[in-house]
Amino acid sequence: MMRKVAIIGIGETKIGELWESSLRDLGIQAGLEAIRDAGITGEEIDKIYIGNMSAGRLINQELIAPLIADYVGLCETPSVRIEAGGASGGVALAEGYMAVASGMSDIVVVGGAEKMTDVGDEEARNILCSTADREWESVFGATFDSLYAMMARYHMEVHGTTREQMAHVAVKNHYNGARNPNAQFRREIAPEMVLNAPPVSTPLGVFDCAPLSDGAAAVILCPGEMAESYNGKPVRLLGFGMGGDHIAVHDRREMDTMRSTSLAAEKAFCMSGKEPGDMDFAEVHDNYTISEIMAIEDLGFFAKGQGGPATLRGDTALDSKISVNTSGGLKAKGQPVGAVGINQAVEAVSQLRGKAGDRQVKDAEFGLTHNLGGTGGCAVVHIYGRWE
Amino acid sequence: MMRKVAIIGIGETKIGELWESSLRDLGIQAGLEAIRDAGITGEEIDKIYIGNMSAGRLINQELIAPLIADYVGLCETPSVRIEAGGASGGVALAEGYMAVASGMSDIVVVGGAEKMTDVGDEEARNILCSTADREWESVFGATFDSLYAMMARYHMEVHGTTREQMAHVAVKNHYNGARNPNAQFRREIAPEMVLNAPPVSTPLGVFDCAPLSDGAAAVILCPGEMAESYNGKPVRLLGFGMGGDHIAVHDRREMDTMRSTSLAAEKAFCMSGKEPGDMDFAEVHDNYTISEIMAIEDLGFFAKGQGGPATLRGDTALDSKISVNTSGGLKAKGQPVGAVGINQAVEAVSQLRGKAGDRQVKDAEFGLTHNLGGTGGCAVVHIYGRWE
Repeated sequence: MMRKVAIIGIGETKIGELWESSLRDLGIQAGLEAIRDAGITGEEIDKIYIGNMSAGRLINQELIAPLIADYVGLCETPSVRIEAGGASGGVALAEGYMAVASGMSDIVVVGGAEKMTDVGDEEARNILCSTADREWESVFGATFDSLYAMMARYHMEVHGTTREQMAHVAVKNHYNGARNPNAQFRREIAPEMVLNAPPVSTPLGVFDCAPLSDGAAAVILCPGEMAESYNGKPVRLLGFGMGGDHIAVHDRREMDTMRSTSLAAEKAFCMSGKEPGDMDFAEVHDNYTISEIMAIEDLGFFAKGQGGPATLRGDTALDSKISVNTSGGLKAKGQPVGAVGINQAVEAVSQLRGKAGDRQVKDAEFGLTHNLGGTGGCAVVHIYGRWE
Repeated sequence: MMRKVAIIGIGETKIGELWESSLRDLGIQAGLEAIRDAGITGEEIDKIYIGNMSAGRLINQELIAPLIADYVGLCETPSVRIEAGGASGGVALAEGYMAVASGMSDIVVVGGAEKMTDVGDEEARNILCSTADREWESVFGATFDSLYAMMARYHMEVHGTTREQMAHVAVKNHYNGARNPNAQFRREIAPEMVLNAPPVSTPLGVFDCAPLSDGAAAVILCPGEMAESYNGKPVRLLGFGMGGDHIAVHDRREMDTMRSTSLAAEKAFCMSGKEPGDMDFAEVHDNYTISEIMAIEDLGFFAKGQGGPATLRGDTALDSKISVNTSGGLKAKGQPVGAVGINQAVEAVSQLRGKAGDRQVKDAEFGLTHNLGGTGGCAVVHIYGRWE
């Protein structure tokens, strides 16, 4: 009954401290690039979804979706803003999928945008903290960094995960990011740099934490049967899954696992008829190095506790067992929070088109994106396949 | 191909300055009441949508949907927060409709919640202003009130609309609100009180403006074919429409009409196979008295320029030509911004169940809700029908 869904266009700004561009500038740039890439006209667009975490606090602007629609020149087109913290982009993509698969819309633009750096790093990190449980975590002084640091400490304690293993997440992602023209950090780093970096919240140091960035990205969806009538080389969007968990870390059953991730993955694999072993690459939500280790376990690529050793062995490097965060991930590509899920989708499409340049996964046929909100209160997983 | 959609449960908090309840308290109360009313169990719920405008700024909390899902006891259930300024609730309802109609979800909860009063009225009005165009309106001193005041002045100039006609919007809505146990203002007022009230932004006085309130509401959707298997008396959700327009008032072609409203209405009537004359009642977005006059024109109930005279004649009073804002509307029932669209849906269901007490529209068979974001940058219209 549901229609198949294709992605026929992608657009992405550079990610970084983009002080000369406003949120709307970034949204316009990514949106128009995706429209051009797909070879569609604005009039063909039936609906617009925008993922954005916190423009209200970051730039004093709400009503984000109509705003960006307006400045892209599509003010009459229905538009919807989704907020799910760091998973805003991924959840927006899931809603866009539903709009197309259901037959309610044909051409749908899904974008993500965030302008983090205008308020300064301390305030930006404070705002990020509003995706933790304000009443039971943040007000008592728990920072976002410290909540993830607790998870890291627990993972180390229970599974013997080491700082060196975590460091290799950052090293690998910087290696990949150095090969991504849109990445914020395009410099390879050595494990010693990560291990000797100033602490943020022990055991996490500066290089264990993704930056907070400005950036936007957009993809164009259409029904599978229409995909070949446009210019942009299509990619299949095979399915998605969403999962939730307690917002507050202290309410979780376990601190070494993201239940929301495994729930989302289970549904996404079920919907797409695929399994972890089918994936050639995965973009996972590495807002901290420990997050990537937990994600590759919870997504089913490695057994619980084996994420660290696998990373150190190089099993997640480019063209290894599973190529993880070929884009550079949040760590090196950057973290424009509400856009991250769409940045991940852009990378998945680039890989499956065979257009990922120096970071291309050989013969990539299937891939996955994993997008996390808060400290794991929600997660969304999408699965993509090559067109032909 | 799409399934029919029914509403089988409603829940609503009292609206007002609820200083003893937090956002999550309000969300829990409305959600549980709707679940009880429908007679479903939490496990049956497939998805949750929450409309909320600005919790980030109002209470320093984002990730609103997983937060409320968690505290309702449904932390693993996929949840999505929608932000569309004042139309957040209505847009959430449209997404929920799509989830059920498409067959992707069976039981869906759509809630709306806003906690406006903790920051004080001046700051709350400033935050509301972030749904205008921050870069081209708000930063130059245009308040939300003054933007609507300009529309009122223009409407008066072009169509001869009078302050007395506008006053009768408030008088009628207070009359209805006095008959609604959940309304913030339950006191009838005389036209002289409106006309002699202190000015907010001329020609709008205090009684021309809706309050900023705390409150939450929720409805339960399910496929039409399942509706009779639950306890809650079902109501049909026949269709919806969304429309957009330029965010900034100065970009509009005309200032006496909301293009987003007429676009949304056109689509909603088309989808539901109904027309304005079929409606027995309408909940319209009367954030200002002039807004109701524009809405009843743009929705097709009265010709452009006739909204004022019709209101003065009593054509929008209870059991007249079309009963408008039987709940009391935003003016008297109150304005918990992101919840408004769901408050309207709750009223529509109450009317079509014949359970609206002293404000019941006789033999109500069809009704409409109209929810506006910003100064008209987006609008969403839903159409409802009696079950039997």
